[in-house]
Amino acid sequence: MTSTPKCTIHDHHHGWNNALPPAIVALPGDTIEFDVLEASGGQIGAAAVSNDLRRLDFGLLNPVSGPVLIEGAGPGDALVVDILEFVPSGVGWTANIPGFGLLADEFPEPYLKTWTYTQTHAEFLPGIRVPVRPFAGTIGNAPAESGMHSIVPPRRVGGNMDIRDLTAGTRLWLPVEVEGGLFSVGDTHAAQGDGEVCGTAIESAMRVTLRFSLLKEANFSGPRFRTAGPVTRHIDEQGYDVTTGIGADLYEASRDAVRAMIDHLGREYRLAPDDAYLLCSVAADLRISEIVDAPNWLVSMYFPRAVFA
Amino acid sequence: MTSTPKCTIHDHHHGWNNALPPAIVALPGDTIEFDVLEASGGQIGAAAVSNDLRRLDFGLLNPVSGPVLIEGAGPGDALVVDILEFVPSGVGWTANIPGFGLLADEFPEPYLKTWTYTQTHAEFLPGIRVPVRPFAGTIGNAPAESGMHSIVPPRRVGGNMDIRDLTAGTRLWLPVEVEGGLFSVGDTHAAQGDGEVCGTAIESAMRVTLRFSLLKEANFSGPRFRTAGPVTRHIDEQGYDVTTGIGADLYEASRDAVRAMIDHLGREYRLAPDDAYLLCSVAADLRISEIVDAPNWLVSMYFPRAVFA
Repeated sequence: MTSTPKCTIHDHHHGWNNALPPAIVALPGDTIEFDVLEASGGQIGAAAVSNDLRRLDFGLLNPVSGPVLIEGAGPGDALVVDILEFVPSGVGWTANIPGFGLLADEFPEPYLKTWTYTQTHAEFLPGIRVPVRPFAGTIGNAPAESGMHSIVPPRRVGGNMDIRDLTAGTRLWLPVEVEGGLFSVGDTHAAQGDGEVCGTAIESAMRVTLRFSLLKEANFSGPRFRTAGPVTRHIDEQGYDVTTGIGADLYEASRDAVRAMIDHLGREYRLAPDDAYLLCSVAADLRISEIVDAPNWLVSMYFPRAVFA
Repeated sequence: MTSTPKCTIHDHHHGWNNALPPAIVALPGDTIEFDVLEASGGQIGAAAVSNDLRRLDFGLLNPVSGPVLIEGAGPGDALVVDILEFVPSGVGWTANIPGFGLLADEFPEPYLKTWTYTQTHAEFLPGIRVPVRPFAGTIGNAPAESGMHSIVPPRRVGGNMDIRDLTAGTRLWLPVEVEGGLFSVGDTHAAQGDGEVCGTAIESAMRVTLRFSLLKEANFSGPRFRTAGPVTRHIDEQGYDVTTGIGADLYEASRDAVRAMIDHLGREYRLAPDDAYLLCSVAADLRISEIVDAPNWLVSMYFPRAVFA
């Protein structure tokens, strides 16, 4: 019996670069544990306050653990990642960082919420509880293009996808563009809604266990995944309050739907706009209800009522 | 005891126009039954074939039942619509109509699928069953702007929203822009995914029962609704296969996600592209996974595996 290989907190990097040397070499079938840092890379601790967000070093944001070189992986293949387990730290943060987020122009002031959470719930305010469902926000391979690439945007090879269903039990296929794939993972979230509208989720360090295999010559256009079961049952028991944005531009329609939800949460639950914005980011989902009734598309924001316990 | 007022199949109109005389006058608290025509207005019957789609009279598409004038409703109010019941006809159709749909340029040929369905399921092909969940695709008030307006795009007052969760049990709030609201409903669907990507759902005539009330001076920016409970439990038991589209434009990312799902359904289930496209429209959901990791947003298409029984 051999122990599971580990990628420790020291095996991390900033940005994507296919010239980075691998931290670990793995064979198809191997399982690896990653000790993933939270997205501020230690800059936002439990005692941090909103004004600390003004002093963030953006170059240190979103460290990812890796790279892992998978023997035999080559361009055109898909790296198959079985997401096996998350062991969350129980502490985290959510923030409106000035200049970042879907309503950045309307929320110019920094705003920070720090959390402690159990295995099942994170309390936002008394009576407002967000079900915990940990996943990796950033998970991907190195791109073929040489040089250093920002960690922020997701790409064909994955990366900062912020797909809230990349949870334990999900199988993910990631296009490989370079020999060995050069896989990394980071940006673990304790909870997030579809859209991550304020720009952050419940950002939280975790131990992540993944198993790797290969699908040779898959030639996928982008990442794909398969969930092990239902994806919203942890949160949908009480139904949803839903607002809409309607118009010719999906981005503006999304902004309208979020604005309307902030208005709704203020009317219905007396939530301050800053709080409502963060709560939408960690718990509410943006869905495209229709994208064919020209010239107006419709985006809906679904807020799960179970959050108001 | 009085009988429920009825809006028969003769009480329908094409397009929105606040000068249309009301078919029914209602008081807040009234319940009304609507006999809703299917979206072709009788042009596509059970014996229709794909080529009949070339002869569609677009002026007759999407007839809506109404208008209902609600006494006391005025601009700034919200019309509250309790969606009580659907009695579906059991027959319907789904089509790729040339020039219409998210991938219209890639699917230029007409393609028609006619369905019969039970209260619970519609069989697409042997072994491929779509859970039935009826709702009204078009539901709204007359806009303030005078003249005739196309039925196709949804607007601030609602209309052709194609929100698949406007099912029985849902409460809908619609902005009122003219005296009496002048409410109409149509375009009933037996099933649809978020996005309605090929442009049609399972189009099907139904009897719809609605109850009306008013929220005075709501001043809502657009439609809102509250679902009575979970929204995907009819279809999510087996989890989802998910494809992604990644890029700076949400519309193009949506197209990429749908293309990838058509590719996936072809590889995995040997579905022809036309069939896969229609099946995505009636059963799969477009979600905005992230809209903050500039410059690339990520749209996911969720296909429920339960469809492959």
